Amino acid sequence: MRPEDAHHMDRALELGRRGLGNTWPNPAVGCVLVRDGAVVGEGWTQPGGRPHAEAMALELAGASAKGATAYVTLEPCAHHGATPPCADALIAAGISRVVAPFADEDPRVSGKGFAKLRTAGVEVTTGVGADEAARHHTGFFHRVRHGRPLLTLKLATSLDGRIATASGDSQWITGPETRAYVHGLRATHDAVMVGAGTARADDPLLTVRGRDVVQQPVRIVVSRRLDLPQNSQMSRTVDEAPLWLCHAEDAPQEVRNLWTDLGATLIEVPLNGRQLDISALMQALGSQGLTRVFCEGGGDLAASLLAADRVDALDLHQGGVIIGAEGRPALGALGLDKLSEAPRFVLDRVTSIGNDVVQSWTRHRRQSQE
Amino acid sequence: MRPEDAHHMDRALELGRRGLGNTWPNPAVGCVLVRDGAVVGEGWTQPGGRPHAEAMALELAGASAKGATAYVTLEPCAHHGATPPCADALIAAGISRVVAPFADEDPRVSGKGFAKLRTAGVEVTTGVGADEAARHHTGFFHRVRHGRPLLTLKLATSLDGRIATASGDSQWITGPETRAYVHGLRATHDAVMVGAGTARADDPLLTVRGRDVVQQPVRIVVSRRLDLPQNSQMSRTVDEAPLWLCHAEDAPQEVRNLWTDLGATLIEVPLNGRQLDISALMQALGSQGLTRVFCEGGGDLAASLLAADRVDALDLHQGGVIIGAEGRPALGALGLDKLSEAPRFVLDRVTSIGNDVVQSWTRHRRQSQE
Repeated sequence: MRPEDAHHMDRALELGRRGLGNTWPNPAVGCVLVRDGAVVGEGWTQPGGRPHAEAMALELAGASAKGATAYVTLEPCAHHGATPPCADALIAAGISRVVAPFADEDPRVSGKGFAKLRTAGVEVTTGVGADEAARHHTGFFHRVRHGRPLLTLKLATSLDGRIATASGDSQWITGPETRAYVHGLRATHDAVMVGAGTARADDPLLTVRGRDVVQQPVRIVVSRRLDLPQNSQMSRTVDEAPLWLCHAEDAPQEVRNLWTDLGATLIEVPLNGRQLDISALMQALGSQGLTRVFCEGGGDLAASLLAADRVDALDLHQGGVIIGAEGRPALGALGLDKLSEAPRFVLDRVTSIGNDVVQSWTRHRRQSQE
Repeated sequence: MRPEDAHHMDRALELGRRGLGNTWPNPAVGCVLVRDGAVVGEGWTQPGGRPHAEAMALELAGASAKGATAYVTLEPCAHHGATPPCADALIAAGISRVVAPFADEDPRVSGKGFAKLRTAGVEVTTGVGADEAARHHTGFFHRVRHGRPLLTLKLATSLDGRIATASGDSQWITGPETRAYVHGLRATHDAVMVGAGTARADDPLLTVRGRDVVQQPVRIVVSRRLDLPQNSQMSRTVDEAPLWLCHAEDAPQEVRNLWTDLGATLIEVPLNGRQLDISALMQALGSQGLTRVFCEGGGDLAASLLAADRVDALDLHQGGVIIGAEGRPALGALGLDKLSEAPRFVLDRVTSIGNDVVQSWTRHRRQSQE
């Protein structure tokens, strides 16, 4: 590692971060090309996952890439997919050194990119920017490892864990700054998911608003029988942002047809008792290519996800208000008896936004549960 | 204000802080005497409220006090109480200048101390260290203004606002570092209060442990009919820390006698319907001289305090665990219909301790509600 490596990798990570939420099924990668201390090319994975970051940076650099060092936030790909391998392109452009945080976990790459570069005489340095890069690629690696996207559950509650009064009044528990922050969180996810009850009660739009986005996240509604209003904010905006409906085999065919005609994508998921099988649901979303899903409730879907151990991260947003025991709980029943059985989380970050407290937690699983 | 004033006031505040929780019914004041840049005396309000900080510092300084500046964290007293007025003592010792944050709100002082000093030719500077001093004296001023102590409610909950599983398993939701921190909070309060249900279920000791304290906080149990086990951790330790039982007129006389024999102090409070009148309860605690009370639950007492608008501050401690809707709620019912009726709080501070999130909130009341 050289003294300037951390600085250039920081820039590559900054570029790569732009792709979070819009490069699926591919990872969001950033790339900076540096020759004689000067940046000669920059790139990041483009919406939809192509071109790759390296291809964009090489294109910008042109002949200046010869002899340059490439800072890439993930091992350059070595396989022929929809685009030719980036490792080959870097070699062909005359790149003399590649700096990357770590190997790709995608078995089609997984060290083969680095090997190809080294064989061609390119110096390879790894370990730079690994912590931050791991955060960027956690969703992509999650799908590679487990076949399903990383799921972040967001709960917006009162200080005593309620999401509304008994009569359903919920506007507002958190403040405008925090609600704006939620739009930023949506933007860095591939999809936003809610249960049918929330879709019916709140008629949410679930799009990213108040900031520029190159691609709206997919909107997912989980509804066993597709018992959803056909004239809703979401049904009217299928052209602006994709709408996926996850249902069971007993959803009536005429309702399926209706939603298909409206432009929604239907995903049939097996039943587990009276509910959709949550594990199968998450695998189905992984098969569609999703890497990062942001669930915004309601309490029943959240509890089902927790009970099936499919919540990987938890974002808790709390406003400075107390509602009391008759208020609606943020989560449904989990069927736990002992505290030792309860899902545990490790604190990543806590901060205040306006007069709210915003916490980020990661699911803590014992090694055997992984 | 002179350049050195802030520095010496910081030291006076540091000294004054030592008294929090053990100077009631008096405020916890600190005092530093400085002559020619050198500290010649230091003092703080002693346990039980006497000697006052100024008296202790003057005693230490002796003849060196002549011509010195006195940094005091509250206006020196002007009235003959259990001790002679500190303003007189400062004048007699030849103090040439007094620096203080603000006037005392106690009507027996309230500007009279400063007036006395100025009349005697002592220079008086105010406004130094006012923010921090206001935090120290908030409980004392609260009792002066409202006749009742400042009440801080502590809730230790899961991320979804639960304090135990349905079966009552609650060990542990927060970690050992946070539980140790709670002992520090107890130590800076005059009294620790719980409801009868918590006293019966948990058999708590409620003392400060794991750190030195000059005086244990009073332990208060709220129990309408004194239906409490007579052989409990608290009943066996009345010699180590005071035990006050707040009950109604319908507590049986023989049970009252039994507790009096055990060494407990009984405080009779009027009923409001089927419960103790919470406002009357808090006024009774104010009449006893308490300035800072720390309530550690349970959910019913906490809800009664909130419903009566007697919660002035809220400390929320959350562990990284999810329990679900069958778990026991941190708070009982509040009878709210609209969110606009719900008690609101303003965030003072949020931090992490170990793997827990610790939040401090202050009750936000509209001016008319004050």
